[in-house]
Amino acid sequence: MTTLRTPGPTLGVVGGGQLGRMLAEAAAPLGVEVVVLDPTPDCPAAPVARDQIVAEFDDEAGIRELAARADVLTFEIELADQDVLGRVSEDSGTPVHPDPATLETIHDKLVQKRALEDAGVPVPPFRGVEDADDVREAIDDYGAPVMLKARTGGYDGRGNVPVESKADAEDALESVAGPAMVESFVDFEREISVIAVKGDGETAAFPIGENVHEDEILRETIVPAGSDEAVEERALEVAEDVLEVMDGRGVYGIELFETSEALRASEDSSGRSPRERDGDVLLNEIAPRPHNSGHWTIEGAQSSQFEQHARAVLGWPLAATDLRSPTVSVNLLGDVDEPRDAELRNLDRVLETPAANLHWYGKRQVRPLRKMGHVTIAGREGETTDDLLETARELERAVTFTSE
Amino acid sequence: MTTLRTPGPTLGVVGGGQLGRMLAEAAAPLGVEVVVLDPTPDCPAAPVARDQIVAEFDDEAGIRELAARADVLTFEIELADQDVLGRVSEDSGTPVHPDPATLETIHDKLVQKRALEDAGVPVPPFRGVEDADDVREAIDDYGAPVMLKARTGGYDGRGNVPVESKADAEDALESVAGPAMVESFVDFEREISVIAVKGDGETAAFPIGENVHEDEILRETIVPAGSDEAVEERALEVAEDVLEVMDGRGVYGIELFETSEALRASEDSSGRSPRERDGDVLLNEIAPRPHNSGHWTIEGAQSSQFEQHARAVLGWPLAATDLRSPTVSVNLLGDVDEPRDAELRNLDRVLETPAANLHWYGKRQVRPLRKMGHVTIAGREGETTDDLLETARELERAVTFTSE
Repeated sequence: MTTLRTPGPTLGVVGGGQLGRMLAEAAAPLGVEVVVLDPTPDCPAAPVARDQIVAEFDDEAGIRELAARADVLTFEIELADQDVLGRVSEDSGTPVHPDPATLETIHDKLVQKRALEDAGVPVPPFRGVEDADDVREAIDDYGAPVMLKARTGGYDGRGNVPVESKADAEDALESVAGPAMVESFVDFEREISVIAVKGDGETAAFPIGENVHEDEILRETIVPAGSDEAVEERALEVAEDVLEVMDGRGVYGIELFETSEALRASEDSSGRSPRERDGDVLLNEIAPRPHNSGHWTIEGAQSSQFEQHARAVLGWPLAATDLRSPTVSVNLLGDVDEPRDAELRNLDRVLETPAANLHWYGKRQVRPLRKMGHVTIAGREGETTDDLLETARELERAVTFTSE
Repeated sequence: MTTLRTPGPTLGVVGGGQLGRMLAEAAAPLGVEVVVLDPTPDCPAAPVARDQIVAEFDDEAGIRELAARADVLTFEIELADQDVLGRVSEDSGTPVHPDPATLETIHDKLVQKRALEDAGVPVPPFRGVEDADDVREAIDDYGAPVMLKARTGGYDGRGNVPVESKADAEDALESVAGPAMVESFVDFEREISVIAVKGDGETAAFPIGENVHEDEILRETIVPAGSDEAVEERALEVAEDVLEVMDGRGVYGIELFETSEALRASEDSSGRSPRERDGDVLLNEIAPRPHNSGHWTIEGAQSSQFEQHARAVLGWPLAATDLRSPTVSVNLLGDVDEPRDAELRNLDRVLETPAANLHWYGKRQVRPLRKMGHVTIAGREGETTDDLLETARELERAVTFTSE
């Protein structure tokens, strides 16, 4: 029996960026308080959270203080240190969700892919590489281009380098600078993602979103995705399989490739049924936390990924995930050449657009391509995702951080 | 041209109860920060606001501090002192919305009704009363029963006393204890309300809600209301007229009676057209702030009354007000006989119900019939307001603050 008091249960969150901020926004109506730990004084989550502990993400003393103030610990960045989290949790008796072991699995993309492959999750062909010879061998086996990935530390496309030919192998390895892996380049129809939730004895998933990346940074998410029903079903099955591999409760952002029709047609000739035919979707990346491609859920679904994350880590029942209306979200990235104080101009265009919802992350400095906010447009009667996308793109182009 | 920086504009809010809390929740995604002034340390809004100034609602030094920290002042309680607010605003140059003059008009229900009647807003017959003779005379003129109302200080039905017969006039006046007025008792079909917004050169209104009161305290709001289209149109016209009377930007909660069919039929015989026939709706009360009967907008409309209030007082463009789906909200009131520490039990029933949204106000103490939170159910495909209301009532009955 869940009983709610004031002050309500407290989530201790490692990281106080936009994800921590939106988590605090979603937790408040539930009576759930949020304390964040972040090294940046007055981080994005600070104004809406109960409190901020200013400390590095792996600062053990800081995390001990966080654990002492919280009923459950969670994290909103992969930079959280699994060893420190695990140790503090054991000593303090404050649980951490997801489990630090999951962070460990996910931190190393090679370990992650192996664990998922072992669990029957469809992944593109991949292998670990030690040197340029290994990269060239992978090109022989998979065909060029291949994707060289740093095994640890990369996000928003950082640490991912396409290798067009064997001659580029040395340079690519150098730019990755560390343990690396190679993946076959996927000929995809579209990129999709599933925001899935592992609760206490139950799971849930939101409808799949279609993602548009540019320079490997997410720009737009469109829901419903353009995929057909069979692909959506398959993506949700894969998400279920992924959740089985992951330890501990919480939201997982699961990025998938929907493979191209040509690829699927050739696989159809194998005579395997769609269920057996893994090729429809292939796993790309997993984030053990709410994900940029799930921000649309705040307005577009019956519950948001942030509310679900709070419910899941607390062990509370999960909420409904139905789509409420066609929805599009578009990131507001730093359109500047150099870091400067953040001032978003022409905001009226966003505010005047019916059903456009602004989300400002409260960052003081804008940097090139930095995620500063997003806009979600929840469709009204008769509006299609094409209409919404057109409007969203106009708004994204209209607002600017430059002074001209 | 609106430009958004970090930290964003700051709203200084007199009052930090649940309305201030939900205002802060809605302001955060817009990059708008909230500082509240409230005498209760760690008031409901405190955990989600940037800061709280602990001071009485009419404490001039406190309000000066609030004005110094804010770009715009507003209030979430009628107990705000219009004189202090007006003086501080003038001295500090920080605008107040709505205008303190509006508070003054609304504070005194007799002054309020006169101003509205003068502006052509349909109101039930009313008059000021000085003594029991005046009350008895009103009963002669309007017929029994009549409603005796304290001119100032009443809310949630406090200060409203039905007078069944002339013999009760003395006792009723004594219980009101102060300047009073009498209103004809309205034979209403249903109680409805319009949440209307006065922006910078524009206005907006949400679809009307149907309100169910018990012991003069709001229990449920149902949208769409059961009223027919003509009544909804008339209610929205009346709301426009009310906004004309009110000075200053912000959200207004406008409570109306939809008069009974019998009453309307008798008035129809006057030969007046529906537009001229004021009797379809009659004004009951106005609140110059977000209103309990508009909480449904958080999930049920394209924007919430709290977001609209923030936009309006800042002079930003207003947002869309369309209904997203049939929606019902139900208050969670203190079901206790004596004040005690607030612990809401059986919360699982709410959390397990698809599309039920919990809003906990963060009050530490529960008191008989105190507003502790609310639950909104936003309809999913195929659900009607009858379905939603049935579920909402089950949830309201299931949760409890008692320990049995």
